[in-house]
Amino acid sequence: MKRLLFVLVLFVAFVSMSVPRADEGMWTFDNPPRKIWKERYNFDPPDAWLDHIRLATVRLGGGTGSFVSPDGLIMTNQHIASGQLQRLSTAERNYIRDGFYAATPAQEMKCPDMTADVLVSYEDVTGRVQAAVKAGASDQEANAQRRAEIAAIEKEASEKTGLVCQVVTLYSGGEYWLYRFKRYTDLRIVFAVEESIGFFGGDYDNFTYPRHDLDISFLRAYENGRPANTDYFRWSESGAADKDLIFVPGNPGSTSRLLTIAQLQYQRDAGNDIQMRVWTSRRDALAKYAATGAEAARQASEPRRSLENSIKRLVGQQAGLKGASIMGRKEAEEKDLRAKVAADPALRKKYASAWDEIAAAYRAFPPYARRIAFTTLAPSALGGYASTLVRYAEEVRKPNSARYDEFRDSRIEATKRSLLSPAPVYRDMEEAILAAWLEEGRKTLGASDPFLQAALGSSTPAAAAKAVIAGTRLADVATRRALLDGGPDAIARSDDPLVALARKVEPVVRELRGWQEANIISIEASAGQRIAQARFAVYGKNVYPDANSNLRLEFGTVLGYEEGSTLVPYKTTFHGLYDRAASFDNSAPFALPRRWQDRRAALDLSTPLNFVYTADTIGGNSGSPVINRRAEIVGINFDSNLQKLPNRYAYIDEADGSRAVGVHSAGILEALAKVYDAQALVDEIRGTRRFGSH
Amino acid sequence: MKRLLFVLVLFVAFVSMSVPRADEGMWTFDNPPRKIWKERYNFDPPDAWLDHIRLATVRLGGGTGSFVSPDGLIMTNQHIASGQLQRLSTAERNYIRDGFYAATPAQEMKCPDMTADVLVSYEDVTGRVQAAVKAGASDQEANAQRRAEIAAIEKEASEKTGLVCQVVTLYSGGEYWLYRFKRYTDLRIVFAVEESIGFFGGDYDNFTYPRHDLDISFLRAYENGRPANTDYFRWSESGAADKDLIFVPGNPGSTSRLLTIAQLQYQRDAGNDIQMRVWTSRRDALAKYAATGAEAARQASEPRRSLENSIKRLVGQQAGLKGASIMGRKEAEEKDLRAKVAADPALRKKYASAWDEIAAAYRAFPPYARRIAFTTLAPSALGGYASTLVRYAEEVRKPNSARYDEFRDSRIEATKRSLLSPAPVYRDMEEAILAAWLEEGRKTLGASDPFLQAALGSSTPAAAAKAVIAGTRLADVATRRALLDGGPDAIARSDDPLVALARKVEPVVRELRGWQEANIISIEASAGQRIAQARFAVYGKNVYPDANSNLRLEFGTVLGYEEGSTLVPYKTTFHGLYDRAASFDNSAPFALPRRWQDRRAALDLSTPLNFVYTADTIGGNSGSPVINRRAEIVGINFDSNLQKLPNRYAYIDEADGSRAVGVHSAGILEALAKVYDAQALVDEIRGTRRFGSH
Repeated sequence: MKRLLFVLVLFVAFVSMSVPRADEGMWTFDNPPRKIWKERYNFDPPDAWLDHIRLATVRLGGGTGSFVSPDGLIMTNQHIASGQLQRLSTAERNYIRDGFYAATPAQEMKCPDMTADVLVSYEDVTGRVQAAVKAGASDQEANAQRRAEIAAIEKEASEKTGLVCQVVTLYSGGEYWLYRFKRYTDLRIVFAVEESIGFFGGDYDNFTYPRHDLDISFLRAYENGRPANTDYFRWSESGAADKDLIFVPGNPGSTSRLLTIAQLQYQRDAGNDIQMRVWTSRRDALAKYAATGAEAARQASEPRRSLENSIKRLVGQQAGLKGASIMGRKEAEEKDLRAKVAADPALRKKYASAWDEIAAAYRAFPPYARRIAFTTLAPSALGGYASTLVRYAEEVRKPNSARYDEFRDSRIEATKRSLLSPAPVYRDMEEAILAAWLEEGRKTLGASDPFLQAALGSSTPAAAAKAVIAGTRLADVATRRALLDGGPDAIARSDDPLVALARKVEPVVRELRGWQEANIISIEASAGQRIAQARFAVYGKNVYPDANSNLRLEFGTVLGYEEGSTLVPYKTTFHGLYDRAASFDNSAPFALPRRWQDRRAALDLSTPLNFVYTADTIGGNSGSPVINRRAEIVGINFDSNLQKLPNRYAYIDEADGSRAVGVHSAGILEALAKVYDAQALVDEIRGTRRFGSH
Repeated sequence: MKRLLFVLVLFVAFVSMSVPRADEGMWTFDNPPRKIWKERYNFDPPDAWLDHIRLATVRLGGGTGSFVSPDGLIMTNQHIASGQLQRLSTAERNYIRDGFYAATPAQEMKCPDMTADVLVSYEDVTGRVQAAVKAGASDQEANAQRRAEIAAIEKEASEKTGLVCQVVTLYSGGEYWLYRFKRYTDLRIVFAVEESIGFFGGDYDNFTYPRHDLDISFLRAYENGRPANTDYFRWSESGAADKDLIFVPGNPGSTSRLLTIAQLQYQRDAGNDIQMRVWTSRRDALAKYAATGAEAARQASEPRRSLENSIKRLVGQQAGLKGASIMGRKEAEEKDLRAKVAADPALRKKYASAWDEIAAAYRAFPPYARRIAFTTLAPSALGGYASTLVRYAEEVRKPNSARYDEFRDSRIEATKRSLLSPAPVYRDMEEAILAAWLEEGRKTLGASDPFLQAALGSSTPAAAAKAVIAGTRLADVATRRALLDGGPDAIARSDDPLVALARKVEPVVRELRGWQEANIISIEASAGQRIAQARFAVYGKNVYPDANSNLRLEFGTVLGYEEGSTLVPYKTTFHGLYDRAASFDNSAPFALPRRWQDRRAALDLSTPLNFVYTADTIGGNSGSPVINRRAEIVGINFDSNLQKLPNRYAYIDEADGSRAVGVHSAGILEALAKVYDAQALVDEIRGTRRFGSH
């Protein structure tokens, strides 16, 4: 880790030396960077090109997928489907380890709790949301008024269209957009690779390039029990080539590029450390549990991988923020904007104080942030169910406009669906997680903290966790459904010990959520909106909003780079995979699945496997299709390299070696055909045979 | 280059963080680190094991080779034989580009000017050399007295044994050893790979790992027109495996690990910059010449590669010296030794002033160093011949004990052999080199510098170079032989314009050589000897002397390492070679020779190609055999990685990723048999068939 930090500090050092000539931006579909495309790439697509891309791309869990056949076939990463694969696996059938292929429609496996959203249409509702704020309202009142209006807009739109309708906040409240989604709730797993090839090299090679991972899976969206008819991407015959212009549509999860210096300093000096503590303690608890046996290791494997990934990314982000160059650039940008606002009397009056208001709010935040981070039962899946039930009981009594976001009419179905997931629950793992979590909370917040007092009373973390997990009946979906169906009173009366625990801690959770709403969020919303408006007034709308897990379009070039004193190629090949496996004498995490060892001679080993490009992606772009000018699939995005990690806070220029990493389209077909004997899937993707025909 | 510097600064930063647990040292055969071997590896070989290694290893040009058959077959790197290959090539037959294989004895090609030395025996003559210094002698007198004694020892030994006998200075004069060499002067080229596979990846991948180069060639030593009967290394059936203990005998060229702080500061602040200027100006001149046409490019290719290699290494060395950690360690070491000397009255009296004497001498050095570096015609081969002739004429008039080293009886044959090399001379290239050299000299020293005055008079560099190169007859070996045979007077009378030029500049060369001898070398010799004695007195003889192109033994472990956040494997395979070629779409310098493309299917692609180990090698170890405990060949050394580059000045610990890079023995045989159809060579190496039998 120390070594990784040094490497990152090195990469970050480059930032300040380069002149950005950026394939930068996670652009909304209403504001694509047409000028850059035209000037830099002589590319000027019709609107229909953009519509097609939007309708063939899906949001999928925390990531992205793309339709690749007219029969609802979705391509994504193995690591995006892995949560579902983990839930479908048992001690006897391990789809994470062994992969999966449904050679016939009947063999496709239904996902326990994953949905796919297509952004069908969108509409600017900024005026309506902002008009809802009454003159003279305090920040907190304004926030409540905006939220009520948003709830009303969503409800109206849902009722009118039957779609899932959500108002999305962009530019820290500078804009509000109504997004209408078609949601597919019946997803079935068609194909997944073995984790050892989808995540070849394990955590070592994660965020590393050259890379050799076939990180792919296929799902199928069903509607009314039949494969959905969908827009879809066609497959490129040749795939990605050196210097090609490519596009990456997807759902980047979260960036912090428009934050003020005060907000960034908070992240650097407090927020990221708290997050790191949360994740590492959870990771360590899972590692300890996994060490108790093979089946425990299997149960813990998917969440461990996910946490390792988050931790490695956070290390990179924090290194970027601690380096001088990103913060220096940010300070210069903020100084410039504030100076321009100050120089114009009208702007100064409206906007000049916004930065200081945010700074003042954040000064009080750190001790609350620590409490907020640990005041939850959610690391335990059962604890999360219990708290959601208790919260549900309270929220549904309120009018739609006054509820927490996740209980508003527009979102409550998704909340219920999560609650009723048929995913397996492992009691021993749950107990281990909850005990470790309460232990870490007590260590961090002290035994006298209100949450710990409520959760533990005079008990120890281990004893408390043992008691509630042993006694709870929430592992049974039917129990959760009965409580939900029984309504608020049934939940309030439940004698389930875990529900009782959730009731005890709920007032503390609510108090902190209220504090954050009143003291941070409403001020951020108000001041953030003014800063966004100031930015528009000074620079125009030449900027993209921070990512928030909604649909964006990124673009870039397929391009190698320099590292050390040598060149890193734009692609790797199957030869590279076999080289790396053999170089480590086929030992984990560089061991190839049996099937890959056996089929080596059948493969054209010069086939491209992975490739890199300059598109401005981030977590959430996992599974994004990589497409060419003709909107054909040339690959699928699955990772970034180390150089790119700090890009949460600023675009890292391509000259500094920052790259996204994808699986090459040719490698996907080669493997499906020659290693997995999945010819039907290949034919469906290539459009030579419709699904289900024989 | 800027990027490379950053990477190096990074690597150097690690040095201070690690606790050395060093496979350190370039040990003389009289003082092998038996204690370390025993304790760390439980290895305690008999003396015969050491003798065998010594007698099967050869010094070869600036590098190393090893006998690998009883019939004088020598294995070395392609880049060690490349000077000879370049000299043997013509516009029509390009052995650098196309490689070479003598399928029958008759096809073996005689090397124009390469010899192989075997260290037959050695003897400590420290007492005799030091006793030659009269009481009360000044440093300069002492130096002359030691040199006269050394000349006498060498002459006596040569006459007695018929061997090449040289007194070697170790520990800055702390020890003198008489080395007796058997010298093979009839070497013939048996096999060489194409440069594009021997130097795959070109300057980019030089000092890089993972690496994929088959940097090998084979020569044969002849004696009296027949293959020499020699000691030789047997071939390991399995080759190098992970964690194996290995040994590397060879002739490391030059290290500066025992220098004083004053000497290191001189290198850092002046010496390395001067060297860099010399090399880069020569490299640039060759690049300019190479751009004039394909044949010019061919002529310049080998020296260009060599200069690029030197420059890249020097960048790494200088980065190491400029980083805080190496210098910090050095200062601490010197401080400790000086404190211990100061604390003991007897030691203090004898040794305490030595460091300051060296420091005082070096203060005057920089302006002279710059003049010394540029006051030579040697960058031009013809210029070098002319100066050697002129110098020869003067030196041979003196008694043996008073001559410059290279004209002493023990070395004069080698000097004459170089002078009479049948290597081709390219007049256009000579003119380009000499003109650029004089131009750079004038830029650096100014037009009024004595050397430039003597060389140019009122002429321009271009005109002067044109005149002397066009007019000289020295390109003809017979001319040089006639001048040599004609003796001092013939040379003094020669009207050859280049000889005339050499005569004009010779007084300046001599004056500077005299200055350096009197003001630097003799003080270094005297004070250096005292520091060495002080070190022995304080610490014992637990240290190895600085490298000086004589035989040493290094040891270490075959071992991968961490870089970035991932693992670098201990070996690469043929798969990796094909991957890297395909990854760059087979474009230079990553293009594979035709033969390698055609024979891919014949190869077992999992065969190891390169591998890394912790042995403390440096330039001059190129071509060193890498052997196991049983003294069997498991590979051949050819490079180091970037992390190791600063090791001229200090051992870079293995925990910092410092590694030597070799070609794996299994890869050598696989390629010889499957790509080159060189089965006779394979059989000879494996001992299944004697050379020449059918």
